[in-house]
Amino acid sequence: MRARFRDLGFSIGRVPTGPANAITDVPGVRVGHTTLIEGDGPLVVGRGPVRTGVTAILPPEPVFSERVLAGSFVLNGAGEVSGLTQVVEWGLLETPILLTSTMSVGKVSDATVKWMTRRYPGIGDEYDVIIPIVGECDDSWLNDAVGRHVRSEHVYRAIEQASGGAVAEGSVGAGTGLVTCDFKAGIGTSSRRVVTFRANSETGPSYNLGVLVQTNFGIMRTLCIAGVPVGEILEPDYSDDGRRVHNAGSIICVVATDAPLLPSQISRLCKRAALGIGRVGSYAAHASGEIIIGFSTANKVPRSTSGMTHHIDVLLDDACDGLYEAVVECTEEAIVNALCVADDMRGQGNHFAPALPLDDLAEILNRHHAARKR
Amino acid sequence: MRARFRDLGFSIGRVPTGPANAITDVPGVRVGHTTLIEGDGPLVVGRGPVRTGVTAILPPEPVFSERVLAGSFVLNGAGEVSGLTQVVEWGLLETPILLTSTMSVGKVSDATVKWMTRRYPGIGDEYDVIIPIVGECDDSWLNDAVGRHVRSEHVYRAIEQASGGAVAEGSVGAGTGLVTCDFKAGIGTSSRRVVTFRANSETGPSYNLGVLVQTNFGIMRTLCIAGVPVGEILEPDYSDDGRRVHNAGSIICVVATDAPLLPSQISRLCKRAALGIGRVGSYAAHASGEIIIGFSTANKVPRSTSGMTHHIDVLLDDACDGLYEAVVECTEEAIVNALCVADDMRGQGNHFAPALPLDDLAEILNRHHAARKR
Amino acid sequence: MRARFRDLGFSIGRVPTGPANAITDVPGVRVGHTTLIEGDGPLVVGRGPVRTGVTAILPPEPVFSERVLAGSFVLNGAGEVSGLTQVVEWGLLETPILLTSTMSVGKVSDATVKWMTRRYPGIGDEYDVIIPIVGECDDSWLNDAVGRHVRSEHVYRAIEQASGGAVAEGSVGAGTGLVTCDFKAGIGTSSRRVVTFRANSETGPSYNLGVLVQTNFGIMRTLCIAGVPVGEILEPDYSDDGRRVHNAGSIICVVATDAPLLPSQISRLCKRAALGIGRVGSYAAHASGEIIIGFSTANKVPRSTSGMTHHIDVLLDDACDGLYEAVVECTEEAIVNALCVADDMRGQGNHFAPALPLDDLAEILNRHHAARKR
Amino acid sequence: MRARFRDLGFSIGRVPTGPANAITDVPGVRVGHTTLIEGDGPLVVGRGPVRTGVTAILPPEPVFSERVLAGSFVLNGAGEVSGLTQVVEWGLLETPILLTSTMSVGKVSDATVKWMTRRYPGIGDEYDVIIPIVGECDDSWLNDAVGRHVRSEHVYRAIEQASGGAVAEGSVGAGTGLVTCDFKAGIGTSSRRVVTFRANSETGPSYNLGVLVQTNFGIMRTLCIAGVPVGEILEPDYSDDGRRVHNAGSIICVVATDAPLLPSQISRLCKRAALGIGRVGSYAAHASGEIIIGFSTANKVPRSTSGMTHHIDVLLDDACDGLYEAVVECTEEAIVNALCVADDMRGQGNHFAPALPLDDLAEILNRHHAARKR
Repeated sequence: MRARFRDLGFSIGRVPTGPANAITDVPGVRVGHTTLIEGDGPLVVGRGPVRTGVTAILPPEPVFSERVLAGSFVLNGAGEVSGLTQVVEWGLLETPILLTSTMSVGKVSDATVKWMTRRYPGIGDEYDVIIPIVGECDDSWLNDAVGRHVRSEHVYRAIEQASGGAVAEGSVGAGTGLVTCDFKAGIGTSSRRVVTFRANSETGPSYNLGVLVQTNFGIMRTLCIAGVPVGEILEPDYSDDGRRVHNAGSIICVVATDAPLLPSQISRLCKRAALGIGRVGSYAAHASGEIIIGFSTANKVPRSTSGMTHHIDVLLDDACDGLYEAVVECTEEAIVNALCVADDMRGQGNHFAPALPLDDLAEILNRHHAARKR
Repeated sequence: MRARFRDLGFSIGRVPTGPANAITDVPGVRVGHTTLIEGDGPLVVGRGPVRTGVTAILPPEPVFSERVLAGSFVLNGAGEVSGLTQVVEWGLLETPILLTSTMSVGKVSDATVKWMTRRYPGIGDEYDVIIPIVGECDDSWLNDAVGRHVRSEHVYRAIEQASGGAVAEGSVGAGTGLVTCDFKAGIGTSSRRVVTFRANSETGPSYNLGVLVQTNFGIMRTLCIAGVPVGEILEPDYSDDGRRVHNAGSIICVVATDAPLLPSQISRLCKRAALGIGRVGSYAAHASGEIIIGFSTANKVPRSTSGMTHHIDVLLDDACDGLYEAVVECTEEAIVNALCVADDMRGQGNHFAPALPLDDLAEILNRHHAARKR
Repeated sequence: MRARFRDLGFSIGRVPTGPANAITDVPGVRVGHTTLIEGDGPLVVGRGPVRTGVTAILPPEPVFSERVLAGSFVLNGAGEVSGLTQVVEWGLLETPILLTSTMSVGKVSDATVKWMTRRYPGIGDEYDVIIPIVGECDDSWLNDAVGRHVRSEHVYRAIEQASGGAVAEGSVGAGTGLVTCDFKAGIGTSSRRVVTFRANSETGPSYNLGVLVQTNFGIMRTLCIAGVPVGEILEPDYSDDGRRVHNAGSIICVVATDAPLLPSQISRLCKRAALGIGRVGSYAAHASGEIIIGFSTANKVPRSTSGMTHHIDVLLDDACDGLYEAVVECTEEAIVNALCVADDMRGQGNHFAPALPLDDLAEILNRHHAARKR
Repeated sequence: MRARFRDLGFSIGRVPTGPANAITDVPGVRVGHTTLIEGDGPLVVGRGPVRTGVTAILPPEPVFSERVLAGSFVLNGAGEVSGLTQVVEWGLLETPILLTSTMSVGKVSDATVKWMTRRYPGIGDEYDVIIPIVGECDDSWLNDAVGRHVRSEHVYRAIEQASGGAVAEGSVGAGTGLVTCDFKAGIGTSSRRVVTFRANSETGPSYNLGVLVQTNFGIMRTLCIAGVPVGEILEPDYSDDGRRVHNAGSIICVVATDAPLLPSQISRLCKRAALGIGRVGSYAAHASGEIIIGFSTANKVPRSTSGMTHHIDVLLDDACDGLYEAVVECTEEAIVNALCVADDMRGQGNHFAPALPLDDLAEILNRHHAARKR
């Protein structure tokens, strides 16, 4: 029986979570998955086995006409988030964020363009063109990745069925065929409710911050959970047979907040998320694309305005430390949730990814006096 | 009758051109176009009129197994070159470079993945995944861009028919529907044969350098050719009727050389190409995505090797100034070639892009004593 | 008799200048110089000849307690602007900007710290520490640069005597010993009064934009003025004797505006200034440090506040094109002003830098029908 | 009685250390400190109390004529490493690296210029100018920082007395007045002996990698050592009286290796060092300048050469993971060493920084089953 990390009785970090402990705790943010699981046995390109999918993260709608501020950080650029160049330049997010299998990025990008041009009829005419945001991890170890089984309708469905509240984790959507530190993983999420403060101990308004990861990085030996070297302890129990043997994963990390941050502040927040990836044991291996994209729902930039200037509310830089601390632990917990929730999976060519053994995990954490849930 | 710029009797810059005055003067580099022109009259999304296409720039094959060193510079990131993040991180180019219409990037990316996985059967298995390089400009002013008329076979054809030697320019391939400084433009190319030198006047080996642009930026008022404010002089002759009235273009610039440069040196070269864009009159308008990607064919990085280290030949940094000077003028000339070669075009909704009037151009340049071809 | 460029009857670009055609046309911005000229003949390190100085650009005071937003762009990092890392990170300017000789950066930085800690007594106690902004060019061809003749009192004087209105140009302050395209240069400035506009032709509020350069780059052959290849035309008149023979200059460019721009927008503005450097003939030679720093006086960020958030007025990105166009031409004109105003100078070791011959320049520009002053 | 971390019987990470467990395990690398401790009681600016100094890290000499390849990463740019812009642009280190107190950067930079121009008499004449590398942390909580007590002779002494072998740690040199996570800290170092490997388990040559930190960041609550939340456990024992109460520290991290890496690879290595900072508990607080600079001694770039090209040996990117893993744990251990070695210190205004209690630390680590030294 799988569970989220906190259901085991432990916690990561100091800052309290939001009600769903998910990126959807940021008001207006919605998540949808299309999960594709089909067939077993040896790989026949174009036939399967299929272990892949699409995940859509939607900023508050209508995001194309009411853009939100955005930023990013590339810890290791050995991967792809299509459309990132424009996000970096303009500091704006104007489409949903889609996640999928590496070699399906083109198809998902094309389907998102089609969906957007239907949703916003003026595109390509009075409005500008669309450059969608599509991130990826390589699921070719379990999935017929070359077969590119994601189709347009899978993208539409992920977008259209996206909702707030609890988010499905583990082997769902773009996480279906993914592995992290040699254990089955996929999608994970977590959130924090952050009280801002300043050096002089003054406190300010509270904000919501959420992280969703598509996680596929690392090797067992370096896996740490709540500071405990769980991977090193468990490794002797796992032979190499049937396990992924190389280090070429990736992680895409999406950060959302309703704190009023400028694009440059959001990028700084994304940089701190990278520290959370590191705490789980990543050393950002050469071939592991580790990319973070973030957005804030607090200020909208309308596509059409009457004036030439606008007013922005901004959290002072020296009041951001609470968010920085929160995003580190929230990212760590999102990854751990993906590991805790995902169950065993056998995929193409009979490749097998074992689930993280939760009983063993709880026993190890207790032995090391890891922090109990408060 | 259209002509390349030098056919008018003028020249840009001091450094001699290669035999084809094209990016294909770099040995092994090939270019292919698929041009799509169909229909007239009002826009019916999905039906046309169609004024678009695909251009493929191929580094020496087999580029996936014998990667070349690469770099880039983003003058203005209001555009997209899919796959750029990985180029920046690894300093490697391992696929062809494709250019197309903005909203067709997904389709072209997907088709390139398919083409590559057929061409290199081990991909997704023993090899890594593919992240293709796909750049874009927005051709929606003349083309049914929302209709996304580029199909997989158009991509295959551009790649497979790519050849060395003379390169078709103007309204071809990814340049079919493009406009620059309110004149019809599209694809342009130029090359230089560069003698390297150092501050102490010592000269060294010669190298080839070529540039190919997909050009779609700017407004008439700022157009300069060979330093002469041609756009300002011509503007009174053009009424606003039927002309593009906004400034949201883009330019993608591909730089190739056989000089032995490191990725960081190639990125520096790309940065100088931006100065060439500026000399034609660009001020990198907010919505004009101006992105440069470059590669050097001199050092190959094999995908499979027996050793753990390799040897690289590198041109000394203080011997690079000849290349830096050359890339500025070569970029300028490539843009001007696109303008000189492209003929009038009427597109969707009867939008009209006039050709740059070559007789007037020659007369103006003569009057201003612009440099004659030597 | 030396003159500014417009005094010769010509103009650069389309946008009107401010009243002083200087960076000081941005209200509250002040400039001060300390010029050090002493001795003749052969170089005796520590004795002279001295041809150096300090230039101070002051944002509206009190800049340490009321910080202004700032940004930058590095066209070629072969130089130094101390403190730039923090400007990039925080998007804030909190000290004056000082310019000097390369090997005097340390002394000028130290003197600025001393001046600031006297001016703002709480520094190092209740306030933070000071990291001053100090840019440099290498004046060693005319100056005893190793002797580091700039002393603390020279720095204090440049800061304290800074004023608005007309700005001394040419061989003054940090420009005293500098050469550009083999002609004597140094400090130059220019300004523009910019009407903002959008693609749909709507116009908005007007803003002031000013540029000050410390210019020391390039070789005669590539010098262009108003698009005319003046350097190539003049070169046969100059023998190599007594001229600087290498290409290792630099240019530091300071951009100021009262348009309400975010740090990311200011950095984009700085990037466009680089295009202006390119138009004068720079190809950003390997050893030529070409660094742009900018600030906006429109929004202040107080060091001490009661609240945790603040409100910022921001010019919409799609209303920035007027500023982008203006900064290109303003940078070009600032460099040309430095060349026009600076007179012949003989320096250490009898090295000689000739003045740009203004009569010849006017004759050449007329012959090429360069734009007349309007 | 103070000790290094491994002397307590524990270890960090998996990769074995070098003989001195110090940056000097990279052959040719030397370290020197000048420590300034003088006076007690209330602060009198210019008089003291003095708790500051200078640390010099020397690449193999003669570094100015035989430059080494270098790179960097800025985790948080709220600090200064003078000269970093040129390191980033050229990928070369050509001076020693100096560390000191923030407001003494100018003096140390000036003294280094003077030292270099004496050491290499051609500078400013036939050679280029000098831009020294000077990093800083703010020691104003214990030190009369405004008094700027570092003088030229202190810099010369640190450089000239630099040596290989064991490196003094804790409250020495540039670390004299520093605090980390509310405990006394300063200089720390560690090294690794790295066997390179590839994904297919093939192993390659071994290299040395060393890290030296000047550490001054963080708050007690977030301090983790070997994954154990030591700070959270110890915090109740410490009242706020006499402790630093704000979060504005910094850390400068110097990475050295003899692995043959390109500048871009060194920068990637530096990025991974940031993950090591994160593992100790940093979330890169807004005002904490966290900057990493690295160099490789394997390839030299001579200032004067006869040829125009050179040959470089490069470790393949996919053989770098061993170094990436090592630099994370080595950085973590260097910080912990600074904390373990530094003793209690009382400074200006009777400010007090307590030493990390080693007995308690050992007891906590044992209780949490932290990794024992192997």
